[in-house]
Amino acid sequence: MTTLYGYFRSSAAYRVRIALNLKGLAYDQAPVNLVKAEQRGDDFRARNPQGLVPVLETDDGERLTQSLAICEYLEERYPAPALLPVDPAGRARVRGLAQLVASEIHPLNNLRVLKYLVHELGVDDTAKLAWYRHWIHEGFAAMEAMLTQDAGTGEFCHGDAPTLADVCLVPQVFNAERFECDLSAYPTIRRLVASCRALPAFQQAAPEAQPDAG
Amino acid sequence: MTTLYGYFRSSAAYRVRIALNLKGLAYDQAPVNLVKAEQRGDDFRARNPQGLVPVLETDDGERLTQSLAICEYLEERYPAPALLPVDPAGRARVRGLAQLVASEIHPLNNLRVLKYLVHELGVDDTAKLAWYRHWIHEGFAAMEAMLTQDAGTGEFCHGDAPTLADVCLVPQVFNAERFECDLSAYPTIRRLVASCRALPAFQQAAPEAQPDAG
Repeated sequence: MTTLYGYFRSSAAYRVRIALNLKGLAYDQAPVNLVKAEQRGDDFRARNPQGLVPVLETDDGERLTQSLAICEYLEERYPAPALLPVDPAGRARVRGLAQLVASEIHPLNNLRVLKYLVHELGVDDTAKLAWYRHWIHEGFAAMEAMLTQDAGTGEFCHGDAPTLADVCLVPQVFNAERFECDLSAYPTIRRLVASCRALPAFQQAAPEAQPDAG
Repeated sequence: MTTLYGYFRSSAAYRVRIALNLKGLAYDQAPVNLVKAEQRGDDFRARNPQGLVPVLETDDGERLTQSLAICEYLEERYPAPALLPVDPAGRARVRGLAQLVASEIHPLNNLRVLKYLVHELGVDDTAKLAWYRHWIHEGFAAMEAMLTQDAGTGEFCHGDAPTLADVCLVPQVFNAERFECDLSAYPTIRRLVASCRALPAFQQAAPEAQPDAG
């Protein structure tokens, strides 16, 4: 059986849930409570020395880390429905949009970074929220421009079916909403996310639908 | 002609240079001076709304962003020599190691983030350096464990030829050395990087070998 070690509010685990659901794959969930720092305990470190969720244990015993590497693995092992287009330039566009979220926005705003700001740098709540929103706006402004300027954008980030770009975008928007970021400047992003949220694969992956939702 | 918009010290541009060199592909370089913030000017933003290097303009007119998306594109268009193994689990391992660098270490330590710490949060030099080194050590400790524990590690991160994991690791080690991080706790990382640095593809991609090296 495939088992996902995750946390309901982790953007990276949320991405993998969406990808598994879009592929129609069954999986067990093993929640790891990030607020209680379970991911840094010895038990979990034995599964992933990074001390990060998600980890995917596959039905043939592989133990995989890093959400985008996991998604690429799922794409290779279970090609249909595809999360990447067939043409190399289209694949590069989708991966570039996914990386924009995964490398430029999310790493700056996850829990361990916000904790470092507060506990090590003595940053107050106002400055922490400003930091959070700054990286959201930097990233989303770029993504909005890229999505609006490119004829490849359709009902979803690339064409009319969800891809790895949507898999990354939706959890990041969830996260931004949680921190009450004003997303009014990003109508294309909001339109695409609404398309995604109409699909059961996204609905069933949402944080509030998970067994460990608080 | 293929043109790489980059900067000699940018880790992300450095990755793409290594990948291009390993594939034996010729390319022009168009330097973008990050210290002068040229990447945020209108000229460059027209090429990449993200205001980030690298951008690769391909010989058939594609304009690609995000270093790992660019490397995957090169891998698909120019399969030999391969930067990913053939088996899905091996590919996931290599991509996971690459993402560990690209999503967990580098985004926290690049120039725009260090500038925010200093200019917006009033962080002093000592605390800035502690921040930098903290994320290096978090990431490298995990990577060292993953590399040491796995029989897949060879002369390079995965087996005995360079992969996408090495493409990401070498620039990150360069960067860590620049900030005088103590890497003595990471003998496997140092061994693998030494293997890479013996290869012309890595030597010719090094920051000091670039036309815009200061």
